[in-house]
Formats: sequence, C-alpha cells, structure tokens
Amino acid sequence: MANITKKVSWSSRADESAAAGEATPLLNGSEQPQHSRQVRLAWKLTWGANLEIGRLSTVDLEEEITSEEVKSELQTSPTHTLFCLLLLSLDYDNIENQLFLEEERRMSYMGFRCLEISRWVVCGLIGFLTGLIACFIDIVVEQLAGIKYQVVKENIEKFTEAGGLSISLILWAVLNFTFVMVGAIIVAFFEPIAAGSGIPQIKCYLNGVKIPRVVRLKTLVIKVCGVICSVVGGLAVGKEGPMIHSGAVVAAGVSQGRSTSLKRDFKIFEYFRRDTEKRDFVSAGAAAGVSAAFGAPVGGVLFSLEEGASFWNQMLTWRIFFASMISTFTLNFFLSIYHANPGDLSNPGLINFGRFEGDSVTYNLYEIPLFIAMGAIGGLLGALFNVLNYWLTIFRIRYVHRPCLQVMEAMLVAAVTATVSFTMIYFSNDCQPLGPESTEEYPLQLFCADGEYNSMATAFFNTPERSVRSLFHNQPGTYNPLTLGLFTLTYFFLACWTYGLAVSAGVFIPSLLIGAAWGRLCGILLASITSTSSIWADPGKYALIGAAAQLGGIVRMTLSLTVIMVEATGNVTYGLPIMLVLMTAKIVGDYFEEGLYDIHIKLQSVPFLHWEAPATSHWLTAREVMSSPVTCLNRIEKVGTIVDILSNTSTNHNGFPVVVQVPGTKLCGLILRSQLIVLLKHKVFVELARSRLTRRKLQLKDFRDAYPRFPPIQSIHVSQDERECMMDLTEFMNPTPYTVPQETSLPRVFKLFRALGLRHLVVVDDENRVVGLVTRKDLARYHLGKHGLEELQLAQT
Amino acid sequence: MANITKKVSWSSRADESAAAGEATPLLNGSEQPQHSRQVRLAWKLTWGANLEIGRLSTVDLEEEITSEEVKSELQTSPTHTLFCLLLLSLDYDNIENQLFLEEERRMSYMGFRCLEISRWVVCGLIGFLTGLIACFIDIVVEQLAGIKYQVVKENIEKFTEAGGLSISLILWAVLNFTFVMVGAIIVAFFEPIAAGSGIPQIKCYLNGVKIPRVVRLKTLVIKVCGVICSVVGGLAVGKEGPMIHSGAVVAAGVSQGRSTSLKRDFKIFEYFRRDTEKRDFVSAGAAAGVSAAFGAPVGGVLFSLEEGASFWNQMLTWRIFFASMISTFTLNFFLSIYHANPGDLSNPGLINFGRFEGDSVTYNLYEIPLFIAMGAIGGLLGALFNVLNYWLTIFRIRYVHRPCLQVMEAMLVAAVTATVSFTMIYFSNDCQPLGPESTEEYPLQLFCADGEYNSMATAFFNTPERSVRSLFHNQPGTYNPLTLGLFTLTYFFLACWTYGLAVSAGVFIPSLLIGAAWGRLCGILLASITSTSSIWADPGKYALIGAAAQLGGIVRMTLSLTVIMVEATGNVTYGLPIMLVLMTAKIVGDYFEEGLYDIHIKLQSVPFLHWEAPATSHWLTAREVMSSPVTCLNRIEKVGTIVDILSNTSTNHNGFPVVVQVPGTKLCGLILRSQLIVLLKHKVFVELARSRLTRRKLQLKDFRDAYPRFPPIQSIHVSQDERECMMDLTEFMNPTPYTVPQETSLPRVFKLFRALGLRHLVVVDDENRVVGLVTRKDLARYHLGKHGLEELQLAQT
Repeated sequence: MANITKKVSWSSRADESAAAGEATPLLNGSEQPQHSRQVRLAWKLTWGANLEIGRLSTVDLEEEITSEEVKSELQTSPTHTLFCLLLLSLDYDNIENQLFLEEERRMSYMGFRCLEISRWVVCGLIGFLTGLIACFIDIVVEQLAGIKYQVVKENIEKFTEAGGLSISLILWAVLNFTFVMVGAIIVAFFEPIAAGSGIPQIKCYLNGVKIPRVVRLKTLVIKVCGVICSVVGGLAVGKEGPMIHSGAVVAAGVSQGRSTSLKRDFKIFEYFRRDTEKRDFVSAGAAAGVSAAFGAPVGGVLFSLEEGASFWNQMLTWRIFFASMISTFTLNFFLSIYHANPGDLSNPGLINFGRFEGDSVTYNLYEIPLFIAMGAIGGLLGALFNVLNYWLTIFRIRYVHRPCLQVMEAMLVAAVTATVSFTMIYFSNDCQPLGPESTEEYPLQLFCADGEYNSMATAFFNTPERSVRSLFHNQPGTYNPLTLGLFTLTYFFLACWTYGLAVSAGVFIPSLLIGAAWGRLCGILLASITSTSSIWADPGKYALIGAAAQLGGIVRMTLSLTVIMVEATGNVTYGLPIMLVLMTAKIVGDYFEEGLYDIHIKLQSVPFLHWEAPATSHWLTAREVMSSPVTCLNRIEKVGTIVDILSNTSTNHNGFPVVVQVPGTKLCGLILRSQLIVLLKHKVFVELARSRLTRRKLQLKDFRDAYPRFPPIQSIHVSQDERECMMDLTEFMNPTPYTVPQETSLPRVFKLFRALGLRHLVVVDDENRVVGLVTRKDLARYHLGKHGLEELQLAQT
Repeated sequence: MANITKKVSWSSRADESAAAGEATPLLNGSEQPQHSRQVRLAWKLTWGANLEIGRLSTVDLEEEITSEEVKSELQTSPTHTLFCLLLLSLDYDNIENQLFLEEERRMSYMGFRCLEISRWVVCGLIGFLTGLIACFIDIVVEQLAGIKYQVVKENIEKFTEAGGLSISLILWAVLNFTFVMVGAIIVAFFEPIAAGSGIPQIKCYLNGVKIPRVVRLKTLVIKVCGVICSVVGGLAVGKEGPMIHSGAVVAAGVSQGRSTSLKRDFKIFEYFRRDTEKRDFVSAGAAAGVSAAFGAPVGGVLFSLEEGASFWNQMLTWRIFFASMISTFTLNFFLSIYHANPGDLSNPGLINFGRFEGDSVTYNLYEIPLFIAMGAIGGLLGALFNVLNYWLTIFRIRYVHRPCLQVMEAMLVAAVTATVSFTMIYFSNDCQPLGPESTEEYPLQLFCADGEYNSMATAFFNTPERSVRSLFHNQPGTYNPLTLGLFTLTYFFLACWTYGLAVSAGVFIPSLLIGAAWGRLCGILLASITSTSSIWADPGKYALIGAAAQLGGIVRMTLSLTVIMVEATGNVTYGLPIMLVLMTAKIVGDYFEEGLYDIHIKLQSVPFLHWEAPATSHWLTAREVMSSPVTCLNRIEKVGTIVDILSNTSTNHNGFPVVVQVPGTKLCGLILRSQLIVLLKHKVFVELARSRLTRRKLQLKDFRDAYPRFPPIQSIHVSQDERECMMDLTEFMNPTPYTVPQETSLPRVFKLFRALGLRHLVVVDDENRVVGLVTRKDLARYHLGKHGLEELQLAQT
C-alpha cells in the first residue's frame, strides 16, 4: 500500500525552478487560503500567450468571471502573477430529472426525427462555415504573403547589383515585424486564449474540461486575424492547428442557435443547449477543422475520436464525418473558383503534400529499417524540441507574463527570424538552375549566375507550406546537403522559440518542414553512400518520412496522424511506413519527454483523463480515491443552507448528493450547482408556490436559457425572509445518479467515469448511504511515472 | 404507459408464413417446456446455410454441445426442424474478484509492459496470418479459375465453328457443378456455421453475442476451402466477406495461445483467456480481414469500431490499425512475389478497383444531384434484393433444412448460373474490337468477327472481381446498353438466390457488380442524352457510383463502407459523392426494409444491441425492463442449492447476485455460472478446505484453463454427502457489480450497459436490496418500429 510516490507536480516543478531564481512569484500553500478569500477563486486563465498560472485550484465552478472583473482584480491584486486556473468540467451525462423525462416523454417519434434532422443540418453548417473560414485564411495569407515577398524580392534584386542589401534586410524585418506586432497585440491584449494552436485547449474540451472563453465568437475572430498576421509575418508557424480550434468555435456557436457575445438568440436548436449535445457538435467542429486543414476528412474523424470520445456512437461518428466532408469540399470548391479553375477538386486542404506517384516513390522492404531509424531520430529530435520548449515555457511563465512583454517578445522573434533567414540566404552559395518547370514562386537570384536561383531561398523565402512541398517534390539535386543541414538547424530553434509566443499559430507545419529538411538530407546522404542510385534516387520520399518522424516526435499523435499524413499524401501505399515511423517516434520520444500538447496541458495542471487508469493502480479503491466528506443536501432543504453552501468557497463542489433522512440517510439524487443557481434565481420556494398558485412552473427552458453562463451566487439576492423558506429539489435533481460501492477498484471506477463521461460519481456503502464523491480531479491525479504510480498535486481544494 | 405495441417478432413472422403452409414445423409456446426438457435446451445453431432455427430460447448458457450430442439428438428428435438457438453472451466487463485483484496487484509495472508488448505481437501475428490466408485464397482461386476458363474457352472455340456448343455448355455447367458441390458438402455436412459471408456472425460477436463454433479452427478451414470452391464454381459470390470471418477466427485462435480443436496448449498468452481480451483481438482480426479483402486498413478499423465497439480505447484502436496494416502489407508483398514483381505494392487487397485518375474521372458540382438520384435507385434495388432474400430465407427455413437438400440446391444454382450465363453470351451480339491494350483475360470470340470479342462474356465469363474492374475502367463504348441491362437483371436475381446457400461466400462483390453494371448503363444513357459529351464521357465514374449505391442499398453500412470504397478507389476526391450516395441509399432503403445482415441477424432472434435505446423509450424504467424475481445466492451457500439452481432449466440465468442476509438482504456481489461450475468441479467446499489444509488453493489459472468451454453442470458429479457441504463465494464473486436504482430510465440503463459491454446489471432498491437483473435480452427486445415502440418476442425463458 505504500508504494505510491508523492511526486512533486508539474506546477511544483515550475515552483522549484522559480525558487532557484530570486523571488518566487508562485504561491505556497499557506498563502493560498488568503488568496482564495481575496480574489474569490476565479481568475482569468491566460493560456499559451501570457501563461501566468500559479497553480491549479480545481474549483470546478460554473460561474465565469467577466473580463471587467478580472481587470479590476488585476488592479487590486498585489502581484500580477497570482492566477488560479478556473476550470469548468463538462457533463456528458444527461441530467435525467423529472423535467427532462417529462419533456422526452411528451416528445413524439416525429419530434425525435426532427431533432435528428436538425443535428445533420447543424453538422452541415459547421462543415460549410469551417471550410469558408479555411478558405478565407488561405486566400488572405496567399495575397498578403504574395505582396510581401514580391516587394522584398524586387528590393533585393534592386540592391543586389547596387550593394546595400542591408536595406532589403531592414525592409523584410520591418514588414515581418509589423504583421507580427498586430497579431501579437490583438492576441495578448484582447483574447489571450487565442494564442498558440488551440489544440491543447480543444483536447481538454473534448476530454471534458472546459477552458473558459475557449469557444467564444471573439476568440474565433482574434484567432483568424492572428493566424493570418503570424503566417504573413514570416514566423516559423503554420495555419493548420488554429483551424481545429476555429472549427470547434464554429460548432459551439452554430449548434446553440444564439450568440451570447452578440446578444442574439435565434430561438432555434434550443434542445442542444447542454453539455452533452454541445460536446458532440464541438467534436464535429474539430474534425471539420482537421479536415479543412489537411484535406483529411477521415483523419479529422479519427482525431476527434482519439482526443475526445468517451463515446463511440455510430450516428454521431457518421455526422462528424459528414461535417468533415462538407468542410473539405467547401474549401476545395471555393479555392477552385479562386484559382479560376472551378470544379478542380485537387486542393482539399490548406496544406497539400502534392501527389506522390510514379515508380520512383514506392519503397522496398529493405528500406523499412531505414525508415524506422528515421523514426527514432524524429523521436529524439522531437523530445529535444519538447524539452527546450518546456524550459522556455517555464521561463515565460516567470518573466514574460505582461501583455506588453509578450508583444515585444513576439516582435523580437519576428525580427530575428527575418535576420536569420536573410543571413542564411546571403551566405549560401547553393545555386541551382532555374528550369522551365520550376515550381518556385519567388526565386531569388541574388549572387547566383543568370538563369539560376538561390536554393536556400526556396526554403526560407517562402510560406512554410510551399517550402514543405518543394522539399517533397523538387528534383533530386535541387538542394545541396549543407543548405539542408543549416536550414534544419536554424529552423529547429526558430520553431521551438516561436511555439508559445502570444500569437495564433500552429506547430504542424514547422515540424513537417524541419523533418522534411533533415529527411531529404538523409535521402541525399543515402544516395551518395550507396551505388544503386536508381532506388535511392528520390530524396522526396525520405523528406516525407522525415516529416512524419519529426511531427510524430513532437506531437505524439498516433492513429489520426497516420491517417492525416496518408490522406494528405494521397497515397495509401505509404500507410505502413508512416505508421511504423510514427510508432517509433512515439516510443523513442515518450522515453524522454511527453508530447508537446501534453506538456502544455500538464503545465496548466488540468485534470486530464487518459484512456485507462494506470496499470498498477488495482490496489486503490474508491474509498481511497474519493473526496470525503461530501456536502449533501436534503430533498427539501432550507434556502439559507443552500445559499451558504454555494457561497462557501472552501467547499466549492459542483454537484451535491441529495439524501432523505428517514430511514437512515439514503442517497436519492444528485443536483448541480448550476441547477441550484437557477432555482434560487427563479425563487422556486415551497412557500411561494403555495401562496402564488398561478405562478408559472419552472421549465427546462429556464435552465437552457441560463446555459452555459450561469450567474455566480453573489449576483443572486436572497433576502433574510427568503432564507427561511424551503426548496423542494425532487423535481430538479437527477434521481438516478451512477453510484459505486466503496470497495470498487480504481480501474473500475475510472472505466465507468470515462466511458460515460461523468462529472460526479457518488460512492455509497452497502446501505446506500453517501460516503464520498469521485470527481475528475480525484481520478486524474494518479499517474504512472518512471518510479511506479505517482500522485500529482493537482488540486488544492 | 399503454402506447407499446406488442408486436409479433420476426421469428413469429416466420411462424405466420409457416402457418400458411401445410404444417407448422415451429414450436408453439406450450410445446416449449417439453422440448426443453427433452433436448436440454441446447441445439446446434445452423446459421446461414441450413437456417433451421425455430425460435430463440435465450438460455444464455455457457456449455456448448458437441456435434456428437447434436447428432444423437437429431436422430432421437421427432422433427429435424426443431432447433433452439444456443447463445453465449460475452462479458466485456472484467470479473474483478479477489483472485483477479490479487494477481493484478502482484504484477509489476514491467509485467504490464510485457503484456502490452505481447498484445502488439499478437496483433502483428493476426495481421500476418490473415494476410497469408487472403493471399492463399487469391492465388488458388486465380489458378483454378484460370484453368477452368481456359478449358471452357478452348472448348467453346472448338465448337463455335463446328457447332454443338451445347457440349461446351455442359462442360461449363459440370465444372461449376463439381466445384460448388464440393464446397456445399463440406459446409453443409461438416460446419454449417461456415456458410455465407460470416459478417452477421462477426457483427453479433463484436456486439457481445457469441454464436457457437463461430471462431473455431475447423470453421476457418471449411470457410477457406468453401470460398475457393464457390468462387471457382462460378457462383455470383465474392471472396471478400469470408475474409472478415477468417480474420476473426485467426485472432481468436492466436490470442489464446492454444487450440482446443488440436488439443495443443502453447502455455502462452494465458492472460488473454477471457472475454474482454479475446473480443479485443477478434476486433483486430475482423479489421485485418477487411483490410486484406479491400486493401483498406482504415476502413477495417472503422468496420470493427462501427460494428463492435462499446469501447474506444486509443491503444486498442492503434493495435487494430497495426494488425490491419500488417495484413494488407503481407497480402501485397506475397502477391507481388507471386506476380514476379516483388516490391510492387499496388495490390493491397483481394479486390482492387484500379486507379481512378486523370481529368475524365473528376466530377462536377452539378453531377452531385445525379449521384444522389443513383443513391436512391441503389436504395430501392437494395431493398428489393433484401425483401426477395428474406422470403427466400423463410422458404429455406421451412423446406430446405436437410444438408443433402442444401447441397442439391447449391448444385442447382451452380448449374443455372452456368446455363444463364451461357445463354446470355450465346444470344448476345455485342461485339467489340479486341484492342491491343485490352485487359480481358479470357476474351471469347464466339460469333463475332475476327479481332473482336463478345462483350457480354467479359461480364459473365470472368471472376466477378475482374468483371467489376472492367466495368469501372474499360473504354467508353465497350459495352452496349442492352448488354448491361440484361446483365444487371440476370445477375441481380442470381446473386439474390445465391446469398443464403450452404456455401461460403460474400455478397460484397455481387452487389458491386450489379451496381457497376446499372451505374455504367446510367452513364451511357446520360452521355447519349446530353450533348456535352466530354464531361459525361467516362461511364466508369458512374459505374463506381452505381456500385457504391447498390452495395450501400444492400448492406446499409455507413462510415466504414465509405472509407472502404474510398481506399479501394485510391482517390480521396470521390469521398464526398460516395458518402452522399451511401447516405441516400441507406435512407431510401431503410424506409422499405432493413439491411441484409440485419435481416439475417433478426431471423435468428439474436438479442442484438443497437447504439442507443429507442428514442421514445424514456417512459420505461429499469423496474419494467428487468427480469424479476432473481435467483440470488448467499455468500456462503449450500452446494446442493447451487447444483439445483444450475441444473434447473427454467431459471437458466448465467449470473447470480450474491447477497448477505444480515441485516436485511443486501447485495454483496455477482457470480457467474461458469465460475460456479469451475468451483464445483474443483470441489472448493468449506468443509474440504478445513479437512485438507495442504490442498492447493484455486487460482485464476483454473478458470482460464476452463475458458471458454466450461463443462455443463450434468458432467459434474456431486455426491449426496457433498451436497450438504457449503461453498464460500466471497473470494470468487465480483464484489462490486454495477447497479442501477429501479427508477432509472431505459435509455440510461441502456447507455450504461452498452458503454461498458456488460452482461448483467443488477437493479437494486434504495436499501441496496436486489430487485431484478437486466440482461441483454431485456434491452434488445425494445425496438422502434413504424408504429412507435414495439416489444419483440425475443425470449422464451
């Protein structure tokens, strides 16, 4: 029983490294209660950009703090680095109370059919809008980047002869600088949650943890503008990751039939205003985003399932696939019109790997060990990337937390990126003949002879998507090995520095680019070693494998990434090598460090539930895992008691078992904080119901109208007289909550919790008395580390 | 509460039609008990081929009846048509009793790692062996069919000039006849479960219902030989469906590390000898089968998930994908060696649609409505196919139930198929020039001019896979419309007649062939109507859409079928139209009749659990649904009582809640019949344990050794003295069974049951007393029909 290691948590690791510095900006345990009292638990989460979390207070509260409140708190707070993460758990379990059951029982078969049809309509809309957004981003980026590169190219050409190329450098740097500044300002000052790729946030959402503001309209707008700015600004970023976040926001918006931000309620899709339905639609949105980003509808579906699903429902999956298909089709269709070639459906995604075909690009059985070795390299490099980025993030948490500092860092990175690129191009003497079939859009001649172009410039002086494609498909001999080596090295560090900046940007494309560069290098080296040059002739194949290896080593996705890569390649033959490479990269990488997204999730101390309980956790039972004692409510409870319980910040649970006292204390239901808030707001008191018989009965609609931004308890005024009234919870509580006996093993509890997407699981004794409550954080804190089972310090409550 | 329609069940529909005949061979309720006593409940299921079920007796017993017993029963039984279906439910829930927990707790972290590695090894093996089997089938079929067609072709050529083509017809018919006879004999006499495609059986298995003998080695051998015979015998069948069954058998065999049939125990993988693990591996095997059949590894994974999964576990899915990849790669690799072109990885599956590429085969936006219309036609034709096949199956159940009759029917079909084909070819005057690039392997000149060949013969005088490929890819103008129309008509009825014969054969390829024929016809007609011939020039595109529509209309699969089609086509662009077509076909088809596999599953009255409870079932609660009263056991129970309960054929439940009597009757565990049998067999009695202290303690291994063929209670001898002993169940029962309160709504019960893959769900009152037990049949009998919720007469117990 004693083989559990109480391990310092990730946030404590941050703590340690902070303690090594001059002064710790993080709270220690004793300061926590005072802080809790002072700031009332809820602080704005600043994820990614201004990553200023202190430690997690898994308060699991429903209320959200408006930015005004946060601002005022920021002003009164003694130190700006004290932030608690406000987490909203999602409930994938229906609250089957009397109101719900009555509504369901009233509904006819046709009613359910109509609902089903509207689900399809919503999914179609999600796909269509996501595709449109992808199309918009693509066209704007292409236009702006085209102008930028054209201007710089002309400038360089002007000054190559005349001398004074430093002016060109300054022009390039200033252009990048400006775009990135705009992008960073809107993100850092207006919506910090829009920073980064958004994939960790969506992973959390699909896992059942809602990060505040993550699916708001404002986030979407900032995200889209931000990603355009950062890509055009020439950072080492991609526009693919943010598409997944965008798709999710679209889904969350469309499915609710209203916009709280715009204060418009279209009075449609009201049935979908609850966590269960919303989460299903967000899955579809994320899938549509992946689909639009990579032209990979099946990959999108698998992404959603891999990240999300405690569910696997045939009809749901089929709808998700529909949304994905519509999304990629919409993008493709509008892009084909934009490219003045309507009906050409060969651009299904934002990134297109081009066609891998012909004899030169099939592989042989004896190449497979080579591929696996490349997978191992990818895993190593990926782990290195992740470790560096982890340290950088810790540094940012400590020192770069103010928005203005963040903007300055982003601008610095932009300037450095431009300077490094320029220097690399300047000193490169890799000149290549400019063939008639050359695919370069902005070939830079620089110091090359006429009819030749600078090869380094095809990698640096280009949007990353185009660079990837040239690395995959350019003729053998287009790049010389030194160019590729230098490019890999510099781009690796640039990309690592860039991820985590206060800009909207993805890490997929930079990873692919790094991998493609060293992969192509491997291909060239192999060709030069072996004499049978005909087989090794095509370095593009190795570029593809390298890209897969590097991406796998960084993000550590498995099934969905394989399918995404295969779909983007458009060649099923590569399925096996890509799978083997991704597997190897994951195994090797996991040995050293977790995946990039997981690192960022852990740095937030998010109670993220993995697929299964740790293998060696069979000796733990519900009794050890559960939170206890539990605040229970009586079926008919005094209003004052309820208000006190809800206001008590030390027992800030979100669900309360409801009990009856005779005979003994038996569990009879479960009620949520949000429901109690609505009941208090509408003053559903027994006494008032008696006195005012004509009073409208509370309906499910009242709960739906309040969803998802339930007011905080402080905003509800309850008079002293009303405190003496009674509330009857019978009608509103879930009368049949899932329960487990206290001897149940942790894996069994975990399985039930995960499979049904629960939020609260009541632990009972054999007399059906409540003895404890298992919530997400109780399960998430057990972790299989290198020394056996470890218990993370996730929660402070 | 009264809006439930007690509807006659499917088997009762069989009953009705039987009643319309001369004498009902089916039992009525009053005969049942006598019959039960006489045959002791268990009869051999004869699925597909000799589909001779009476009605379902959901006895849910573990013991299996050996074929000897069945044979002897058959001889003594007054009528051969009286068969009960013996169902084995699978338990996807681990039995977490003390033994299990102790073992898990003893196991180190490294132990779990080794287990994980062996899971991967097993999956690799499954993939490899499945690929090899597919390769074997393909090569043997190709060789034998090659010889057959060559002989017949030479004969026809000989007699075309000389006259007397009737001799050729006889030769052809006799060859077909012989092959089919061999195939039918081995299936009908030796292993009737090997008949048909095996997909309904695998669907049931993955759903949690085990059909006896379905994953035996013998079944695999018969299946492989049977499918070779029926394809070479020229029936309207494919070899793809059976691959799925074969993969599943391989998986069930390999994962257990022993063969009960061969009486060999390799003493490996003993940990995997339980339902949970075995079912996971069978999923992988089914996926590997799909993957080998269609070269669709992703489609295979999705098939397994769509059909099976109450689970979605990332690592499991990843392993399934691995098995699929290995399977398609193995097939491809060995086929490439066979075709003397090693390393050419362009034959990933048994069926290969060929490359759909070039400008002529992209589609336009305005073609989409046409595709949808074709989807509707496919749905209609599919429903017609299914209705006809349903009647035919009913007919077969009544009249064609003896093995010899079944063999004769199969031979008749073989002869008719040959005759019809020959007649069609004979009377066809569709002659086409024999181009140099012609892909026909056996072009028949017949009455055509020199340098021409008979177009009808490319469709009929060929293996169905080749015919499909020629319909997809032959030049426009290769077939004239009349040929296609006649071919569609005849092949439709032939395929419909063939499905359900006592031969191993799949329905995928015939469906594709029918669809491709009328699809190509549509394409030709469209091209002749419209003037813009350049766009409509390629009828191959319409053949593909038609094939998808027809297949979708018959089998009604959704996501997995889309992905399978896309992967087989090798062109992601067709994803959207194929999806739309399959959706339309499903919607239209479902309006008239269920899918073919579902019809056959329903005809067996299998308690098949769908994804969700019927939408309008919210007013039903666990109290109404559960079986009650329940036979409970005491924690320390008298051996005599246990033996009596197990021997009692009227209370043949499989799981027994264990209760303690003081204070009150509290639920304290759940024990399975199979566990009790093992306990009785090892005489684990309290008294004996006291007297013989040195006696070895019963271990988990003893249960695993008995798995999955637990002996029947009759084979265990318990003396009169021993009947007085006591058995302590504490150590062996599952102490934490999942429970629900009796007020829980049906959808909620259903969700819990389905998501966790349960076998028994105990219903308790608020004092934790057992009030009922929900099993699969309690949930499966509610069905949403056209008149609202219907209750099927599934169970007789």
